[in-house]
Amino acid sequence: MPRPKTTSHLARALCAVCGLNVLTTCCAFRSNLPSESFHVTGRQKTITSSSYEPACDDVKRTDQHNVVRSKILDLLRDIDSDSPSSERMGVESTVVHLVGTGLNPSLADLPLKTLRLLCEADVVLYDNLGLSADSIMEVVPDHCRTICVGKRGDDGTSWKQADIDALIRETAEASAEAGEDRTIVRLKGGDPFLFGRARTEIETLREGRIPYTYTPAVSSCVAGPHLAGIPLTDPLLGCQSFGVWSGTDALGRVTGGKDWRNVGVDSLVFLMIGRLDKLDSLCESLSAAGTESLNGDTPCAVIQNAGGPRVLQANQQKSNDRLACQRVWRSTLRRITSDIRASDSSIKTVSPAVCVVGQIAQLDLLDCNVVIKDKEK
Amino acid sequence: MPRPKTTSHLARALCAVCGLNVLTTCCAFRSNLPSESFHVTGRQKTITSSSYEPACDDVKRTDQHNVVRSKILDLLRDIDSDSPSSERMGVESTVVHLVGTGLNPSLADLPLKTLRLLCEADVVLYDNLGLSADSIMEVVPDHCRTICVGKRGDDGTSWKQADIDALIRETAEASAEAGEDRTIVRLKGGDPFLFGRARTEIETLREGRIPYTYTPAVSSCVAGPHLAGIPLTDPLLGCQSFGVWSGTDALGRVTGGKDWRNVGVDSLVFLMIGRLDKLDSLCESLSAAGTESLNGDTPCAVIQNAGGPRVLQANQQKSNDRLACQRVWRSTLRRITSDIRASDSSIKTVSPAVCVVGQIAQLDLLDCNVVIKDKEK
Repeated sequence: MPRPKTTSHLARALCAVCGLNVLTTCCAFRSNLPSESFHVTGRQKTITSSSYEPACDDVKRTDQHNVVRSKILDLLRDIDSDSPSSERMGVESTVVHLVGTGLNPSLADLPLKTLRLLCEADVVLYDNLGLSADSIMEVVPDHCRTICVGKRGDDGTSWKQADIDALIRETAEASAEAGEDRTIVRLKGGDPFLFGRARTEIETLREGRIPYTYTPAVSSCVAGPHLAGIPLTDPLLGCQSFGVWSGTDALGRVTGGKDWRNVGVDSLVFLMIGRLDKLDSLCESLSAAGTESLNGDTPCAVIQNAGGPRVLQANQQKSNDRLACQRVWRSTLRRITSDIRASDSSIKTVSPAVCVVGQIAQLDLLDCNVVIKDKEK
Repeated sequence: MPRPKTTSHLARALCAVCGLNVLTTCCAFRSNLPSESFHVTGRQKTITSSSYEPACDDVKRTDQHNVVRSKILDLLRDIDSDSPSSERMGVESTVVHLVGTGLNPSLADLPLKTLRLLCEADVVLYDNLGLSADSIMEVVPDHCRTICVGKRGDDGTSWKQADIDALIRETAEASAEAGEDRTIVRLKGGDPFLFGRARTEIETLREGRIPYTYTPAVSSCVAGPHLAGIPLTDPLLGCQSFGVWSGTDALGRVTGGKDWRNVGVDSLVFLMIGRLDKLDSLCESLSAAGTESLNGDTPCAVIQNAGGPRVLQANQQKSNDRLACQRVWRSTLRRITSDIRASDSSIKTVSPAVCVVGQIAQLDLLDCNVVIKDKEK
């Protein structure tokens, strides 16, 4: 479906909209290479719909969504109509934009610059984003092709990273071959650069000399605890540093068996994916440190679906709501998993979850019934 | 300046706009207290303009900004016109909203929900946000009172935290006294819950039974390195964890003198405020660990004004641009400060800066001239 070359306008608009920040991250600009060098030549690769059809989702959209999209673009043009940077960028080619949804994605959580990219997208390659994907996909244009490349596909398919890398490059190269300047959005959960595989995707783009941009997003490692009322630092509790680990390694093994005795941070954050017994192992490993600050009595909180809705009233609770509800358990390293099981005998997993360990985990700044008592501590 | 009670509408709209996320964080709702209990009674405190006048800024606005504000509200209503949550929240009272700008604040970087709060604000109490404050303040309504409560005021004034706490509470109480339901926005730099003093502000609000909400923002500790092309984790380099420290403690002393030998994270991030000699001390302290992973040869990067514009061309560079430009230095712990001094003999401080230490600091994912060579490492 060839369409008029609008990317030149888009590139200028993008710079305008995002002020100077897109300039910062747009590699095409940053390297000061002439724009021609980004046109991909050779390599007669095309994407056939049959090769990727099983994983394709075409999200239904209504006129309402077209109105919303139009208003977003309208608004963004107004915000930056006088931006001094609007004429600086000369890129006229297909650009791949690496963006993240942040945690618990919804339109209202996205920065305007990310919204605009989605509004202008020709192709969106997106991870499994759970229930929230639909609301985000609503703003893409009617002609936009949306392809789910999730590694844990709901339909049982699971993409391999090498295939995702290849698809991104082939998509960009195919549009260049066809003489189309297209906006390709690679939409990842969370922040694209944190505990993800953005690097191999970028490497593939570099090898193909395909320009790309990166836009940061709110990460669950920081915002997850915060949305449960747990600040990651607190001067009153003497917590002025924190560490972040994936709860499991690339092979799915628990981040345990480590010597935690001298870990040099006040608060520990683990991003947990997997069954509850992995949390068991992690807590045992941490308790085994047996130091003054890290032992079985150390406060511990687990936040499932951070940023999601709370259970409001029984009659308002649909099963879909329940799946995405934020749930918070607070206890100690020794008792947290038994407390979780006691609270809900049907529970097998807390994933996706953030686990916070340390004195900080006892705070709940978002519960207005609590008046903090320990400020003299 | 009394105005019609629009907060009821606002509260509903807020829930609608933010979907279920504001419900998550809105303490008024969360505690299931009847809305009446949030009306502050007694305490005949009022804010006189004279008490705070010296720090007040009334940002000039044009008709253009009014158009933009109107469009933001219009858009947000459209996005959530069918939200199931729009009628759930019955709060009719003054609400204080704790929001952050993220790093290098600009309108295009703010999530829609934060934009909406600013568009509806009656009072904005904001930190020193540097050059970017104006563009954010452009969208507040004409009647909105904006008060800079920065701790390092450009005019030489510096607010004490206790005074800020008191002002927030008094502002909320005064509007309740006057029978006005107002939207008070407490706009902080970065994320309100990270390395800030949100806790004492919240404590004051709790004591006054004033409802408040919290909205997370992109934090420089994560996004700062990322915008310099340094992902905080990378499986190919074996970096799967990171730790974050303030570069200086509450008294301005360097985060040194610590035993870094067994620090249990792969990458170290320091938020630096202060003169370059503090970075000297920090690097010496880290080098002294003398371990395989932490010594004088460990890669180190310093990012000043992360997310800010780059220096583009000499003739496009205004002095204001220069002040907010992102600059990145890459070296080793042993050489970084001398390299910084060698690059710019006039440099006395890199603040505000993020310092990244570890193998990860050698990566530059946003430089498309580099093809990563070490993927087999």
